Amino acid sequence: MSLNCPVPHEEDALLLLGHGAGGRLTAELLEDLVLPAVGRPGPGPLEDAALVPSHPELVISTDSFVVSPLSFPGGDIGSLAVHGTVNDLAMRGAVPLALSLAVIAEEGLPLAELRAVLASAGRSARAVPVPVVTGDTKVVGRGAADRLFLNTTGIGRRLAGLTPSADRARPGDAILLSGPVGLHGTAVLSARESLGFDADFISDSRPLHRLVTALGPCGANVHTLRDPTRGGVAAALNEIARDAAISVEIEEVAVPVPDPVAAACDMLGLDPLEVANEGCFLAFVAPELTDDALAALRSLPEGGSADRIGSAGVGPAGRVTVRTLVGARRILDMPLGEQLPRIC
Amino acid sequence: MSLNCPVPHEEDALLLLGHGAGGRLTAELLEDLVLPAVGRPGPGPLEDAALVPSHPELVISTDSFVVSPLSFPGGDIGSLAVHGTVNDLAMRGAVPLALSLAVIAEEGLPLAELRAVLASAGRSARAVPVPVVTGDTKVVGRGAADRLFLNTTGIGRRLAGLTPSADRARPGDAILLSGPVGLHGTAVLSARESLGFDADFISDSRPLHRLVTALGPCGANVHTLRDPTRGGVAAALNEIARDAAISVEIEEVAVPVPDPVAAACDMLGLDPLEVANEGCFLAFVAPELTDDALAALRSLPEGGSADRIGSAGVGPAGRVTVRTLVGARRILDMPLGEQLPRIC
Repeated sequence: MSLNCPVPHEEDALLLLGHGAGGRLTAELLEDLVLPAVGRPGPGPLEDAALVPSHPELVISTDSFVVSPLSFPGGDIGSLAVHGTVNDLAMRGAVPLALSLAVIAEEGLPLAELRAVLASAGRSARAVPVPVVTGDTKVVGRGAADRLFLNTTGIGRRLAGLTPSADRARPGDAILLSGPVGLHGTAVLSARESLGFDADFISDSRPLHRLVTALGPCGANVHTLRDPTRGGVAAALNEIARDAAISVEIEEVAVPVPDPVAAACDMLGLDPLEVANEGCFLAFVAPELTDDALAALRSLPEGGSADRIGSAGVGPAGRVTVRTLVGARRILDMPLGEQLPRIC
Repeated sequence: MSLNCPVPHEEDALLLLGHGAGGRLTAELLEDLVLPAVGRPGPGPLEDAALVPSHPELVISTDSFVVSPLSFPGGDIGSLAVHGTVNDLAMRGAVPLALSLAVIAEEGLPLAELRAVLASAGRSARAVPVPVVTGDTKVVGRGAADRLFLNTTGIGRRLAGLTPSADRARPGDAILLSGPVGLHGTAVLSARESLGFDADFISDSRPLHRLVTALGPCGANVHTLRDPTRGGVAAALNEIARDAAISVEIEEVAVPVPDPVAAACDMLGLDPLEVANEGCFLAFVAPELTDDALAALRSLPEGGSADRIGSAGVGPAGRVTVRTLVGARRILDMPLGEQLPRIC
């Protein structure tokens, strides 16, 4: 895959913020640089979590967290690091068994601040519950890191019967969304000093494994799960449409965008469908299971506003369209690069 | 445990470089801040790798790598990230099953440099061999990170019969060392621009799982394994003496210190026993197994200079002493903080 990178000669090319934004540049960096270097894990699509060799019931996922500022309405880098990795495991149909937690901190960081975010990570892990079984602490000199970065890696055990994968989405599938979009990205943005929104934004950061467990009875009819983090719903749907070689159409009116999110995105020229989330997910399910799956999601508070937002079609493969409020169709492209850097 | 921290009031206290150096300050940060926040994994001592809950044959270990510069004689951040985690698994008697690899990179890093270190990580992983099954890429703005940090997390499977743990060391144990000390720390130091040594230093960075596999027939008589990375042999022996409540005595003359390492340490006022290594380990074995264990280690090139360097005693618990060349004894303390920051 070559996505027409804007930097043609690698000997001169530099890493861009957009390479880490979860969109086209990230996909290109993966395909053209990372995977040729370290090897492709297997024949299937890249997923939020990978199967552990010789232990097919176990999955593993890793994520580094560089969110700035460290705290934001609804969470902090500690809770986010727990939720992010728990959710990546959940998107493969797994409940978490154990987490590792690695700290890279800048010399001069107040110990009280480090204690606060690690305590938040600990509380979040106990609430799941998942034990933090191992860790690492590195300190770099002043100016060599921006305060604090965390990495969590999780091992999860797949729930019996659940084998969601990006390439299992099928034409005809109902596309469900477990909650409103855009809250995490706008909450982090609102916490940055230079921006002062009137509205209160609260990140949706939360663990999603209970919702996935509720889908357990739907078993193999749950084809694909994906939490729309970096790059938002737009990136997640484009990845699934590409990996499953299907088309996707969603109804704009069916996607819940909270009013303050819509207003902030209007003001900043952002598409709410490209804004990061940390507490909702997309599910592609067999159409006859739509009502059962929605009932399962709505049985939990965090899935109270779950709804069907669209469906998968036969093609063109990889095409994602949005039916707008007035009935027109627009293409929802894979975002190119960063909208909002360092939101996770 | 309180180690008489030099910063008495936490509300004013700041993180120091030494908190990440693997010595007393690191131990204090763990005991006083990290573990109360995220919870202690279990009743035993902290180890290089943890057991995976409900899968007693599996261990997990995580490490972040912040070495500066990114490349040094004998390796780079990519090979180091693979070897470091493979070795942490090996120190629990495990061979690696899978690695994750997470990248935090600074905007503006040349893509060619990123490609080079990731290719090095890939080559190192294939040489073990262990697959890199999942990853993550974050990019932060210029000045928010110093070029590149990596995290690797590994899952390993314990070899049958090998259950080494820091608290299994026993009075009377023979203490073996698999190779010469001080090469990694001095190699990184020599690669820093401001220092120009005449001698050639080459890091000992290498995977140690083959040596540990060779010890397999010694089974439960292998009590404790520990690779002396940050804080060197001094920190590793002090941790084991503390966790096993034993004393340790080593013979200065028995510890192989390459001449260039000795000369550089003399010049810089460093103790070679406190300098980081990435390719040797300490083994506490039942004394009657000394010859078998040494033969096993010496059967592989990377253990060619393995030797017995001392023995464990009944006490005082936690005391580590060195018998010097002239027969005197000196206490080998846990290093306080950093000698050489960012060597791994």
